[in-house]
Amino acid sequence: MTNIRSRFNKPADRLAAQYTASLPFDKRLYRQDIKGSIAHARMLAKQGIISSEDARKIVEGLKAIKKEIEQGKFEFKIETEDIHMAIESRLVELIGEAGRKLHTARSRNDQVVLDMRLYTKEAIEHTINRIRELQRVLLDVAEANVKVILPGYTHLQVAQPVLFAHHLLAYFEMLERDTARFSDCLKRTDVMPLGSGALAGVTYDIDREFLAKELGFSKASQNSMDAVADRDFVIEYIAAAAICMMHLSRLAEEIVIWSTAEFGFIELDDAYATGSSIMPQKKNPDVAELARGKTGRIYGHLTAMLTVMKGLPLAYNRDLQEDKEALFGTVDTLLATMEVFAGMVRTFKVKSDNMLAGAGRGYILATDLADYLVKKGEAFRTAHETVGKLVSYAAGKGKKLAELDIKEYQRFSKLFNADVKKITPESAIAARNVSGGTAPAQVKRALTRARRQV
Amino acid sequence: MTNIRSRFNKPADRLAAQYTASLPFDKRLYRQDIKGSIAHARMLAKQGIISSEDARKIVEGLKAIKKEIEQGKFEFKIETEDIHMAIESRLVELIGEAGRKLHTARSRNDQVVLDMRLYTKEAIEHTINRIRELQRVLLDVAEANVKVILPGYTHLQVAQPVLFAHHLLAYFEMLERDTARFSDCLKRTDVMPLGSGALAGVTYDIDREFLAKELGFSKASQNSMDAVADRDFVIEYIAAAAICMMHLSRLAEEIVIWSTAEFGFIELDDAYATGSSIMPQKKNPDVAELARGKTGRIYGHLTAMLTVMKGLPLAYNRDLQEDKEALFGTVDTLLATMEVFAGMVRTFKVKSDNMLAGAGRGYILATDLADYLVKKGEAFRTAHETVGKLVSYAAGKGKKLAELDIKEYQRFSKLFNADVKKITPESAIAARNVSGGTAPAQVKRALTRARRQV
Amino acid sequence: MTNIRSRFNKPADRLAAQYTASLPFDKRLYRQDIKGSIAHARMLAKQGIISSEDARKIVEGLKAIKKEIEQGKFEFKIETEDIHMAIESRLVELIGEAGRKLHTARSRNDQVVLDMRLYTKEAIEHTINRIRELQRVLLDVAEANVKVILPGYTHLQVAQPVLFAHHLLAYFEMLERDTARFSDCLKRTDVMPLGSGALAGVTYDIDREFLAKELGFSKASQNSMDAVADRDFVIEYIAAAAICMMHLSRLAEEIVIWSTAEFGFIELDDAYATGSSIMPQKKNPDVAELARGKTGRIYGHLTAMLTVMKGLPLAYNRDLQEDKEALFGTVDTLLATMEVFAGMVRTFKVKSDNMLAGAGRGYILATDLADYLVKKGEAFRTAHETVGKLVSYAAGKGKKLAELDIKEYQRFSKLFNADVKKITPESAIAARNVSGGTAPAQVKRALTRARRQV
Amino acid sequence: MTNIRSRFNKPADRLAAQYTASLPFDKRLYRQDIKGSIAHARMLAKQGIISSEDARKIVEGLKAIKKEIEQGKFEFKIETEDIHMAIESRLVELIGEAGRKLHTARSRNDQVVLDMRLYTKEAIEHTINRIRELQRVLLDVAEANVKVILPGYTHLQVAQPVLFAHHLLAYFEMLERDTARFSDCLKRTDVMPLGSGALAGVTYDIDREFLAKELGFSKASQNSMDAVADRDFVIEYIAAAAICMMHLSRLAEEIVIWSTAEFGFIELDDAYATGSSIMPQKKNPDVAELARGKTGRIYGHLTAMLTVMKGLPLAYNRDLQEDKEALFGTVDTLLATMEVFAGMVRTFKVKSDNMLAGAGRGYILATDLADYLVKKGEAFRTAHETVGKLVSYAAGKGKKLAELDIKEYQRFSKLFNADVKKITPESAIAARNVSGGTAPAQVKRALTRARRQV
Repeated sequence: MTNIRSRFNKPADRLAAQYTASLPFDKRLYRQDIKGSIAHARMLAKQGIISSEDARKIVEGLKAIKKEIEQGKFEFKIETEDIHMAIESRLVELIGEAGRKLHTARSRNDQVVLDMRLYTKEAIEHTINRIRELQRVLLDVAEANVKVILPGYTHLQVAQPVLFAHHLLAYFEMLERDTARFSDCLKRTDVMPLGSGALAGVTYDIDREFLAKELGFSKASQNSMDAVADRDFVIEYIAAAAICMMHLSRLAEEIVIWSTAEFGFIELDDAYATGSSIMPQKKNPDVAELARGKTGRIYGHLTAMLTVMKGLPLAYNRDLQEDKEALFGTVDTLLATMEVFAGMVRTFKVKSDNMLAGAGRGYILATDLADYLVKKGEAFRTAHETVGKLVSYAAGKGKKLAELDIKEYQRFSKLFNADVKKITPESAIAARNVSGGTAPAQVKRALTRARRQV
Repeated sequence: MTNIRSRFNKPADRLAAQYTASLPFDKRLYRQDIKGSIAHARMLAKQGIISSEDARKIVEGLKAIKKEIEQGKFEFKIETEDIHMAIESRLVELIGEAGRKLHTARSRNDQVVLDMRLYTKEAIEHTINRIRELQRVLLDVAEANVKVILPGYTHLQVAQPVLFAHHLLAYFEMLERDTARFSDCLKRTDVMPLGSGALAGVTYDIDREFLAKELGFSKASQNSMDAVADRDFVIEYIAAAAICMMHLSRLAEEIVIWSTAEFGFIELDDAYATGSSIMPQKKNPDVAELARGKTGRIYGHLTAMLTVMKGLPLAYNRDLQEDKEALFGTVDTLLATMEVFAGMVRTFKVKSDNMLAGAGRGYILATDLADYLVKKGEAFRTAHETVGKLVSYAAGKGKKLAELDIKEYQRFSKLFNADVKKITPESAIAARNVSGGTAPAQVKRALTRARRQV
Repeated sequence: MTNIRSRFNKPADRLAAQYTASLPFDKRLYRQDIKGSIAHARMLAKQGIISSEDARKIVEGLKAIKKEIEQGKFEFKIETEDIHMAIESRLVELIGEAGRKLHTARSRNDQVVLDMRLYTKEAIEHTINRIRELQRVLLDVAEANVKVILPGYTHLQVAQPVLFAHHLLAYFEMLERDTARFSDCLKRTDVMPLGSGALAGVTYDIDREFLAKELGFSKASQNSMDAVADRDFVIEYIAAAAICMMHLSRLAEEIVIWSTAEFGFIELDDAYATGSSIMPQKKNPDVAELARGKTGRIYGHLTAMLTVMKGLPLAYNRDLQEDKEALFGTVDTLLATMEVFAGMVRTFKVKSDNMLAGAGRGYILATDLADYLVKKGEAFRTAHETVGKLVSYAAGKGKKLAELDIKEYQRFSKLFNADVKKITPESAIAARNVSGGTAPAQVKRALTRARRQV
Repeated sequence: MTNIRSRFNKPADRLAAQYTASLPFDKRLYRQDIKGSIAHARMLAKQGIISSEDARKIVEGLKAIKKEIEQGKFEFKIETEDIHMAIESRLVELIGEAGRKLHTARSRNDQVVLDMRLYTKEAIEHTINRIRELQRVLLDVAEANVKVILPGYTHLQVAQPVLFAHHLLAYFEMLERDTARFSDCLKRTDVMPLGSGALAGVTYDIDREFLAKELGFSKASQNSMDAVADRDFVIEYIAAAAICMMHLSRLAEEIVIWSTAEFGFIELDDAYATGSSIMPQKKNPDVAELARGKTGRIYGHLTAMLTVMKGLPLAYNRDLQEDKEALFGTVDTLLATMEVFAGMVRTFKVKSDNMLAGAGRGYILATDLADYLVKKGEAFRTAHETVGKLVSYAAGKGKKLAELDIKEYQRFSKLFNADVKKITPESAIAARNVSGGTAPAQVKRALTRARRQV
């Protein structure tokens, strides 16, 4: 094993070693670490800093180690502290002296941030793929139910009728912004930090552009102290994930509400519902509830990382090690939630009769009555007041608006004519024929546009 | 395996099953779960709800399962969802029909909260023990260095000299409040929830007082809906842990600062210091840094649990499952941090010469000069201004106060006499002879009192 | 104006002065500050540190200033930085030299924490009073509707019928724990910090017990450095408020859901409902929604204060100034929310017919069927499976359980007899006759106990 | 006053009205609200929905109201709830019937989000300007001190010498990423929501492209339900602000540390330092401390808004009103902090002698010794171990490396020659001549590039 404690007179305390070891969780970065080390070794040889023969041995050794890990044959020893030293130690065991040259012109400080950047770049790609998949499912369900009407709500009170497809497209838009945010985050993640050394740069004639290209980065970092001290990209990923998960929590809440006996707008497929240990009848929307709950977890990771970074002096501090579990936990939770949502949404049964019945509840067409009066010349504010009184009258009588006769309407405004009876949920939807509105023509256009985007 | 999905026509989707399974982390509750089930079975038999023979088989079966788990022979199957069903399924395998009676008069909703309360009660006990241990270490170090003087800081500027023991006792006080907070949390954790059933109570003639006594609780819950929906005790533990960890982060920050070359107030023992992969000279205070960083983790768990609970309707919702990893993570982090701190503080080397030199820096005795003038009859605010000008004068000359001659003093106030030269760090410390102050007599009294408390 | 910048050669930069000034928000502490200064002046005179005549002038001056502030005649000048210097400056204007003696044996560091402790003690008292008031309203509504039945939910799916009074009592219990938490917080708030000086104690022979008694504290602080650096009591208040507000957010969510057209369980009084600028029919539960939203605000204050305190070295640092707006905002929000909730809950109309109809929905009595089989000798797990299949059968037929005939029941178990038809929501409620359960006898007992508590 | 409560039989409860009113804080949006209404009125006239004459009156009325507000003559009445109704009510007072037509084809739901988007767009512009200003100050100070050497730290332990300009440029890079994040946020803020109505679009033939152009937006929103329910742009601004403020908190921490007597690297200008009420000598870095503390405030706003949005069903809910104070508080805090930092950094005195002395402390050149051996043929890991032992030897002797003679060096490796003595802080800095490194040539190039960017 390589030894970086040569100036010390005793080994680390056992508890202290356990407390500081990151190996139990950073071993997950083995692919990135090996990829980075291979590129580094090649660059060192290309620049004549180590021999080609040494580089060849290093590269082969690293590839062998990768195989060992993937075949479950690699022994992770807690004494090696972290994945970097675990791999370097094993390399020295395997290839001897050449292995002791790998760490030339490099520090764990730039090495670990390289690994994290490689990991985050992949995570962003996976995340966008999962978002796209969920968006496609939303479009499938919207298209399959393109004529279904349900009540639109504000304040969870029935407000105006809308197309179910329009409602689902709202989530499509949220996810579209999420995609954009992750793409923007990628720009700041796609920066190659090697060459920063411990904090000040290195004393060897290295080729950072070669490293960037070899490792698939579009540029190299500009300031060595910033490069080793920066975890913005981790926080930015988690912040984008928090917003994305918040969007999913809203859909989760709606699925929970829609699944109630009282709303009855959808029925989850049995494969996505859960039973009770005591109540034999229960069909619970646990997946949606858990997703809603796991939102807290990602918010928590965001709080954690912002707290970690607050007030840290330059450059590297060990506090930064906390970035790993926060990021890994966020990525795992977000990807799993989107995957299981895709299945849940794809398979739920839309109970369109209940939705339509809901769109007849309350005084959902009152706005359209007010607009009716406006189009006959009333000022909007006056029309609004008139219809407010009409609603109050109907509610007092226990009647729906449709049950009032035209005389009763006219008590509130002479502008009401028989044609007021032509206002229906369908007509109300059709009337909202502005871009972004719920009219069928607009929704179709939106579906077409959306389909092109994903 | 027991089956709680008998009303469903298909199995859970594989991803959905994975997403909702808590077994990977709640298996940690096996002791609590078995303890609770044993008490429940005994109560059922005592009340004649199941036979004594059935109860005997159940108890033996559960004890066998406990042994299997502890010997690593128990197979945790993800299909069993959670630790409760995993154990019940195995019980039925082992003892047959009797095992199918265990869940009488019980629901997973009251079962899981029982397990969590048993776990939290134990966690509180461990936490308080660890706090006490760290307090004792602080007292040991304080007593061993009882005459050591260092500069007291405000705004990280030297302010007034204090005894190092006085400084350490400030942390003793913080930890004392932490103890009190965890003890208070215990009162609200120490409530036995069984008998609440799914949410409404159970239809059997059970004996809740017996259960409470058998399981070591001082009382039973008062409302079944609250009992299954409540996770206050989890949040309260985490909130107390967040404050405690904040205290440790302050000590960590001081250890980092004190260990710098510039301050040089302490030197960490080699067993608690870490090296660099590239800089051979480095001796880094990683344990303190990581503790500071892990504060973020506990703040994150608190944010997570508060988010989870926000706006949940009664009674149980699956979101609550998120309580486990948040609590376990908090307990593990806090206990490990206190344990490693005890070792780190016990072994660091106090560099009292550097501390004393620091206490001579700046114009640390200026307050004492102002008090000197007050005692000669000056109003405090005037004395403060006078000394402010004197300091400004000395700084302009590049002199320390001790380097000014008495004439120079008297230019600012005629009240200054030769005895002003008798003001030293030692005299300044001795003069703060009020309860809670840094005078040696007070600190000794405080040490005595503190020793009695732990 | 008194001048504490005598060592400086220039005034503070205008922006810096604005940035650091706390006067715009800490002027709210004027009562506490004056109360503290009066006690301090009296103590100084009692101990012979200032003359009785000076103390008399100071006390009169302070009382005059209090009057000026309360009559809106006091000029708050941003240059005085904070409420402490604003009052001291005015005191010197009013009474001259004696005013310059008030700050003897005191620092702003112990003065400000005294003010904050006095404020928090009052806030706790108000908070508990408001909780008690809301608890009384819950009891009033519960008693007035003691026979009303509604569906109990888990996962927002109908689970088992419960009494509405039982449901409300769950909130009573939550609030009861809140009271206990605030009371416990009081113990750690009720500590008198004066005498700690800047950080090390003071050099005068002061009487801290006198100060504690005079100011209504039960004890004095034990360590001067801790006393000026500690804001645990602020965080603990906010943490207790966060949990309390979380409870209110759950009630708010239920009020929003119960107010929907689909549930229709309650109707808010017009005085607590809000209209729409465009939809004339809308009756929105804005108070409940805002309360739910303001939960975020209090969580935010908690995050803020924990962040502020993380990693601060001893003793006082200016970061601590951030405690004020966080605490004031929390107290204001929590008190206002409880007050408006008391009115909203007191006046909402309980639509008991809709609640009862809801309690007939789904297969809400399935657990009781399983218990029926158990009481006839079936093992619970078997009974659960049997009823699961029965429910699946009935759902397939589109029938309610009550609509099945006894033959159909018996297809699933021979243990079913005609008496199975006697199971109703009422009988199911009555059967849960365990302490904490929803049976009428238990709920009455709980109401009686609760009434005694408030 | 316009009345939107015409369906209600009683006025709002006084407390409920206060609780729900946003006027006390949203009056700040008056400019945006009037700007939006003017564009809306013009569009309505252009489309023939209202007459040109009505539009003219509305526009004049609105301009008059703007003047009233700016001259302090406008009476804000709490009964008008919010800035939208306050202005509309006044408009009707001023111009009568025409005023009642303004709200045609609009809802407060799309109106308020328009105002917030206009506000946020301006805020982003101001924010970027302030960042640029602070970046320029950093460059000024870096250029003025381009040869100054200080110790670079990792773990707050001296690590390797760096140029002070290089250190400052690390902050330049952080701020550069902040700029990019705010610019990206702008893309998602720059979306015109009018036409979304309450949630479903409007029934009038409006021209959304005209509105977008008139109001300076680059596009209109695509889905009406999303448009009124979305506050991503608020959260994204606050998240970017949290990261930016975190960067400032790191600089703040360094300023606090650098200002200590022990480090003594800078001295704050008197105009940016604060005195003590009791310690006449104190010169406290309160601005930096407060900035560090206020980081918590912005983290808190982020937690708050994420909490608010979690689990909200579509479309608008009153919880969203909480967005205002969170956003306003964030913008105010961030802008003020950057402004005061610019002044503080521009004026602090760089104590280059102390910095250089610091760069001679510890064994700061050990890495260069290891690199020295590598360049003579040693494997890096071996060289690292050799120098580790050398450091341990020197520390044992109480000697600096420079104080060892060449014989002592050679005891550890025969590769050491007399030229090892040529390694100095200056040579170490010059040797790190890779892009992003601290060598003078690299730093000069970085300064040039940076200057071009701002």
